Amino acid sequence: MTPEAAPAPDSRPNPFRLERGGPVAPRSGLLATAHGVVRTPAFMPVGTQATVKGLSPDEIRAAGTQILLANTYHLMLRPGADLVRERGGLHAFMGWDGAILTDSGGYQVVSLRERVAIREEGVAFHSHLDGHPEFLSPERAMEIQADLGPDIAVTLDHAVSLPASPEDVRDAAERTLRWTERSLARAAALSTPTGLPQLRFAIVQGGGDPALRAEMAERTSRLPCDGFALGGLSLGEAKEETWSAARAANGSLPADRPRYLMGMGTPEDLLEGIAAGVDLFDCVLPTRNARNGMAFTSDGPLNIRNAEHARSGAPLDPRCSCEACARFTRAYLRHLHQAGEILAHRMLTLHNVTFYQTLMREAREAIDRGAFDAFGGEFRRRYRDTRAADSP
Amino acid sequence: MTPEAAPAPDSRPNPFRLERGGPVAPRSGLLATAHGVVRTPAFMPVGTQATVKGLSPDEIRAAGTQILLANTYHLMLRPGADLVRERGGLHAFMGWDGAILTDSGGYQVVSLRERVAIREEGVAFHSHLDGHPEFLSPERAMEIQADLGPDIAVTLDHAVSLPASPEDVRDAAERTLRWTERSLARAAALSTPTGLPQLRFAIVQGGGDPALRAEMAERTSRLPCDGFALGGLSLGEAKEETWSAARAANGSLPADRPRYLMGMGTPEDLLEGIAAGVDLFDCVLPTRNARNGMAFTSDGPLNIRNAEHARSGAPLDPRCSCEACARFTRAYLRHLHQAGEILAHRMLTLHNVTFYQTLMREAREAIDRGAFDAFGGEFRRRYRDTRAADSP
Repeated sequence: MTPEAAPAPDSRPNPFRLERGGPVAPRSGLLATAHGVVRTPAFMPVGTQATVKGLSPDEIRAAGTQILLANTYHLMLRPGADLVRERGGLHAFMGWDGAILTDSGGYQVVSLRERVAIREEGVAFHSHLDGHPEFLSPERAMEIQADLGPDIAVTLDHAVSLPASPEDVRDAAERTLRWTERSLARAAALSTPTGLPQLRFAIVQGGGDPALRAEMAERTSRLPCDGFALGGLSLGEAKEETWSAARAANGSLPADRPRYLMGMGTPEDLLEGIAAGVDLFDCVLPTRNARNGMAFTSDGPLNIRNAEHARSGAPLDPRCSCEACARFTRAYLRHLHQAGEILAHRMLTLHNVTFYQTLMREAREAIDRGAFDAFGGEFRRRYRDTRAADSP
Repeated sequence: MTPEAAPAPDSRPNPFRLERGGPVAPRSGLLATAHGVVRTPAFMPVGTQATVKGLSPDEIRAAGTQILLANTYHLMLRPGADLVRERGGLHAFMGWDGAILTDSGGYQVVSLRERVAIREEGVAFHSHLDGHPEFLSPERAMEIQADLGPDIAVTLDHAVSLPASPEDVRDAAERTLRWTERSLARAAALSTPTGLPQLRFAIVQGGGDPALRAEMAERTSRLPCDGFALGGLSLGEAKEETWSAARAANGSLPADRPRYLMGMGTPEDLLEGIAAGVDLFDCVLPTRNARNGMAFTSDGPLNIRNAEHARSGAPLDPRCSCEACARFTRAYLRHLHQAGEILAHRMLTLHNVTFYQTLMREAREAIDRGAFDAFGGEFRRRYRDTRAADSP
């Protein structure tokens, strides 16, 4: 961290207390939000449309969730940010009193690709719902997030899919930095529906190039934000490239501020990310894969469609105590899945989110007793992922 | 009731205690099953595939459910009765420790119509899942239900859609009576997976003709069964015809045995059926309509898709205390429904089943204090169904 990196973030009170670890090492900490303290490292289940698909707020909590993610892009289109503000913000709207982070919408907009035009002013795109033309600027992204009222808002970024030319990668990273400045300037003038404070995380881009990542992290860390998000990773580069880029960025961010790795998360990714100094994660894998019949277990992923489970009296995971494992056999859950029943989606989702949250809690405990490496090794020895790599 | 009607049912111990009312009047009673006492009149939510679509067993119970219905036809095809027996029967399989009634499969088989051949021996049909040829005889219907292990099994019947010729109606009613005798004879030799006793309800047919219904009720009541089911109603006849047929049948059944009106149940139908002396009901309306966005409320049905609910901070029904009404606004539930989210189906289903069970509980209480007519009048004054008749 260069000397000039420190001042600006420190101009805002630090919501994070680092308890163990350093800039590029397994860390544990406490992140104070308007809806409670989040113990990190923490995993955020994805609630794209203001609901974690299939689960009630009580179940999201019972799974061990402290903070969830909702998507600005989807909510700005439906039901609309003004409606959510009118109903008191996301927490009141969806009946969730834990912490919420919203992304900025940048990733979703760009992933639509062919219907998108990126200009310096912002991103013009068409709604995936009805083709309506829309425009998202850095300022607008923060206005929408102020209306939604999450505990943590994220600045607008420009991500590029890899492979891309070094020029394109730098161009997007530089634009992201300019957009971050504009996002933060606009956010300073906004307020949430409840009047409760909102933290601001700035996205660091830079593709798979560690030097560029380090540079962008260092320059971003001079801006008046509360925490940082690593964007544009796992977008086509090799896994080693992902982690060296993440490590380079984390090494150039202030050690005492929270870092969030966006949109990545097999169980192995979480362990790798924690080792690289990441505090917050989100990923659709536990929820999306559940609806496809895939359950995460201590022994590795399990496909409930497989005939071997048809008459099984065993739970999904004998080491799990979620409602799905406490109440139902694989035979019943397979029947429900084969019959297309909602309860299958519910129960596999509940189990998978519980599995992720249990993994994170155990990782935190291992960090706190200085035994993270042993914990990770033990997990990997038992966990066998025999499938082809499953990307989000 | 003619003198010769009494002997046979009385040869089996009566699981029912009539507390208030007579043969064709609002009644309250206690129906003892292997999984608890059911206070009647009672409504059975439909769990076609061994799950009440969208709800967990705890939620089914929290809604006020004492007994639910599962479908023999669907379960014999998937996952198969032998698998359910191997897993300990329906209660263990689906994690429900309340009472269960299964129908005989007769109605589903016949409603497939063009792929069905009805012979004296039984019904040949093709699976709706894979076209596989299947055969359901009275004996087989009871064997399957013994494997499934519900608290109440129902004999195989032959229903006819109306209008039909008097000859066809009598022919089906007479065949039903012969099949009932064969069903009951076979059931006597069977046992459930748990060894717990299973009650047997005999179906009474007879179309919309009160005289034939009375005759068939009287002749069926001589057979060694525990209770009776009124089948083949609401299959095309006018409502007045339905109720005069139901009243005629109930007038010729032993007053002290339970009667179950199969597959009918708008809220108004439940009140009408109770007035006609019915003890048990089932219907897909509360669950199926929930998934289509229709909520039953004290003021009548409500369609959550309607734009008028888009910004509403009101619950579905201010008089309801279910999780959906306690936690969520119409605005949020509408958003979830429009976005195709599972939580919308869950919450509207939970609400509708709660609404039905609350109606039944209040009806029982009104009967017990001798005020059923006043209760029904008050309900109807408030409840406004402005839709076109919505049939199951």
